[in-house]
Amino acid sequence: MNKKIAIIGAGPSGMAQLRAFESAERNGHDIPEIVCFEKQDDWGGQWNYTWMTGLDSNGEPVHSSMYRNLWSNGPKEALEFADYTFDEHFGQPISSYPPREVLWDYINGRVRNSNVRKYVRFNTVVRWVEFDENTKLFTVTSNDLAGGETVVEQFDDVIVSTGHFSFPQLPSFEGLETFPGLLSHAHDFRGAEGLRDQNVLLIGSSYSAEDIGIQAHKMGARSVTLSYRTAPMGLDWPDGMEELPIVERFEGSTAYFSDGSVREFDAVILCTGYLHKYPFLPAELSLDSPNSVYPDGLYKGVVWQQNPHLFYLGAQDQWFTFNMFDAQAWFVRDVIMGKVALPSVDVRQADIDAWRERYNGIPTAADEVRFQADYIRDLIVATDYPMFDLDRVVDIFLAWKKDKVSNILGYRDGSYQSVMTGTIAVQHHTPWIEEFDDSLERYLSEPAATPS
Amino acid sequence: MNKKIAIIGAGPSGMAQLRAFESAERNGHDIPEIVCFEKQDDWGGQWNYTWMTGLDSNGEPVHSSMYRNLWSNGPKEALEFADYTFDEHFGQPISSYPPREVLWDYINGRVRNSNVRKYVRFNTVVRWVEFDENTKLFTVTSNDLAGGETVVEQFDDVIVSTGHFSFPQLPSFEGLETFPGLLSHAHDFRGAEGLRDQNVLLIGSSYSAEDIGIQAHKMGARSVTLSYRTAPMGLDWPDGMEELPIVERFEGSTAYFSDGSVREFDAVILCTGYLHKYPFLPAELSLDSPNSVYPDGLYKGVVWQQNPHLFYLGAQDQWFTFNMFDAQAWFVRDVIMGKVALPSVDVRQADIDAWRERYNGIPTAADEVRFQADYIRDLIVATDYPMFDLDRVVDIFLAWKKDKVSNILGYRDGSYQSVMTGTIAVQHHTPWIEEFDDSLERYLSEPAATPS
Repeated sequence: MNKKIAIIGAGPSGMAQLRAFESAERNGHDIPEIVCFEKQDDWGGQWNYTWMTGLDSNGEPVHSSMYRNLWSNGPKEALEFADYTFDEHFGQPISSYPPREVLWDYINGRVRNSNVRKYVRFNTVVRWVEFDENTKLFTVTSNDLAGGETVVEQFDDVIVSTGHFSFPQLPSFEGLETFPGLLSHAHDFRGAEGLRDQNVLLIGSSYSAEDIGIQAHKMGARSVTLSYRTAPMGLDWPDGMEELPIVERFEGSTAYFSDGSVREFDAVILCTGYLHKYPFLPAELSLDSPNSVYPDGLYKGVVWQQNPHLFYLGAQDQWFTFNMFDAQAWFVRDVIMGKVALPSVDVRQADIDAWRERYNGIPTAADEVRFQADYIRDLIVATDYPMFDLDRVVDIFLAWKKDKVSNILGYRDGSYQSVMTGTIAVQHHTPWIEEFDDSLERYLSEPAATPS
Repeated sequence: MNKKIAIIGAGPSGMAQLRAFESAERNGHDIPEIVCFEKQDDWGGQWNYTWMTGLDSNGEPVHSSMYRNLWSNGPKEALEFADYTFDEHFGQPISSYPPREVLWDYINGRVRNSNVRKYVRFNTVVRWVEFDENTKLFTVTSNDLAGGETVVEQFDDVIVSTGHFSFPQLPSFEGLETFPGLLSHAHDFRGAEGLRDQNVLLIGSSYSAEDIGIQAHKMGARSVTLSYRTAPMGLDWPDGMEELPIVERFEGSTAYFSDGSVREFDAVILCTGYLHKYPFLPAELSLDSPNSVYPDGLYKGVVWQQNPHLFYLGAQDQWFTFNMFDAQAWFVRDVIMGKVALPSVDVRQADIDAWRERYNGIPTAADEVRFQADYIRDLIVATDYPMFDLDRVVDIFLAWKKDKVSNILGYRDGSYQSVMTGTIAVQHHTPWIEEFDDSLERYLSEPAATPS
């Protein structure tokens, strides 16, 4: 097989793609020539924490939106790899909601001792991708950020795995430019310690607002106000946290809300979501979609309908994460290697339309979880990725959602059972609300076991 | 004349280039077809203030590094256009150190009523530029950020006027990732109001550190510490401000300095300069230089030596600004229009080498100002841009430097005389240290003239 393929981005989905090809090679198949471009100096994508905000030390947009003291906001049992379990990695049961560094270690563990790192060109940014209708090849132009060299290469297939939680969506609010305090998007939030004793406004009603809100509360913010456009999250917030409808305007540090409320704030964080943004792609190859569990234009959620040599991984809004990326990566691998035959453009479109129609009719969040489980099942049956009990994972998600409603500050102390191994998660040695050290070292230590 | 040229960036230097061509056209010359690409929704570049930091609402790197309450840090008499004076624009004498909005109004005023806005494609980002050695044409690929369309066009000449104060240089310091408070680069600083009662560390010893330092002091910071790598600024700092040598490491909020000092900080701002960064250019066309009054590789400071159809404006470290951009733009115009003949590559190199040799021998800052004046003179004599008394502008710079040493909080209350019109600047109605409103409206009002 003499195909040459480009993988753009070595985050969780790009790493899944590398693993997928490696798995085929271990099973005796010839695999294509692979170049994986990664602008950071290590892999892990979002999970590769940086103190930098905005632009990085190479002048490139910072990729990761993660912050100090970020703990998984969903049970790890819902994202476990089917082909590399937490038990295999850690050799002991761990809790259901590990901090960032622990999850980073887990996804690294799967590929660390494999032979795939050789495929990754770190510190290398893809500047431009073109497709030639005559040769049917992509031209990928990349820059070595360390040495500065510009390289132009041809590829048969391109896999876009750069994610869609890196480019902030920034709505405007009247007078926002007059706000004198800290003003940033969640993408640039790196920790809530500096919000102690402050009155904090978070605009948004999704995961960023929820988690930055409780981070600020945990770190001693005087008050946390969450402002929603459509509907409140409706969780059982502790004293000091409240939800208000949308801000209509600012005058200096004063915010005016649509229900007539008026509040003074020291800090405003826009938890207003992210853009699908692919600055290295021409418009005709670039996914342009709201955040959705089924963006239009992608057959099986991964194959660019207008040009089936272009693929997107992880372009969906995500209940499932790591194991969904796996299912996608295995499927993309098999399309590229010809083991999965692509049907005609019309058949593909009919498939997209059918999923989109079901998507448009999804009545509840629970049904959206089930929808995504069915989507993943549809991919896995087409490949040799190990099938797992998706219905039980759905149940985990639904139980987790209930946990949050009843106990937003304590839900991370709950435990779930692995659908891969049956292992029941242990309790972390310290309740989340009292845990101010998110290091792997601390996490794996046993402070409760000190001799008495 | 059927040449087609691209101007990348409609900030002060790109606007100067538009004005230069318009001036030639008014004088009866045929000018090339012009396309000016501007990623922001208005022109003015750095002077186009935004509350956004890091990435803008289109997901593009934010261009401007300016902040609320930024007042010119040099006398306006040193940057006055020779062909459009402050008197002509404002119709009355104004003070020597206007705030940002006033200077923005001035540079806009020159082009506002002209016919050049038609050349600018706003909300349009240049993604990639290539040069074809066979056709001798540049291919410029741009994206309409509003509509998303990708456009590919050929040009005879490309003028890069995107500036070099937009991509932060981010040195690393041991333990910086453990600092829990506000941590950002000067590029993302938008105002010091939020630093009230805080202990603030500014790392750097150039204009950003100097001005953000006195901004923080003015806005009520508890303490301001300035950390230098090479030499202190040595100004007469007020109580509450001090200079220390370089930070060696951080442990949480504690900074350890090379002289053994140890301090706790609430906020750290890296005033560590900017990168020459041109993400739309291949390495072989991309200026790669430290910040310097004479970057290598540019004939007359503007013509790319390796390909004289590529030009850079304002790539120098800047004492002179707006009027230097004019001198450069007029020169570039005349090279493109064939009125200035380019000598052979060897003669150009000898010229570069001679200037670089003189540059390398510059003993003092005062000599650097004189060097830049001589550089500008060299350009102006080659074109029809109005010559002005550069030696008197040098004197203004040297007097200004003395003012700052003796009175860092009061130097902006000083007045200078225009070398263009002879007009002596008026005193602003309010001393700078007491002025908390930087609007054009307030600036041009006469609050002292209220009836008594």
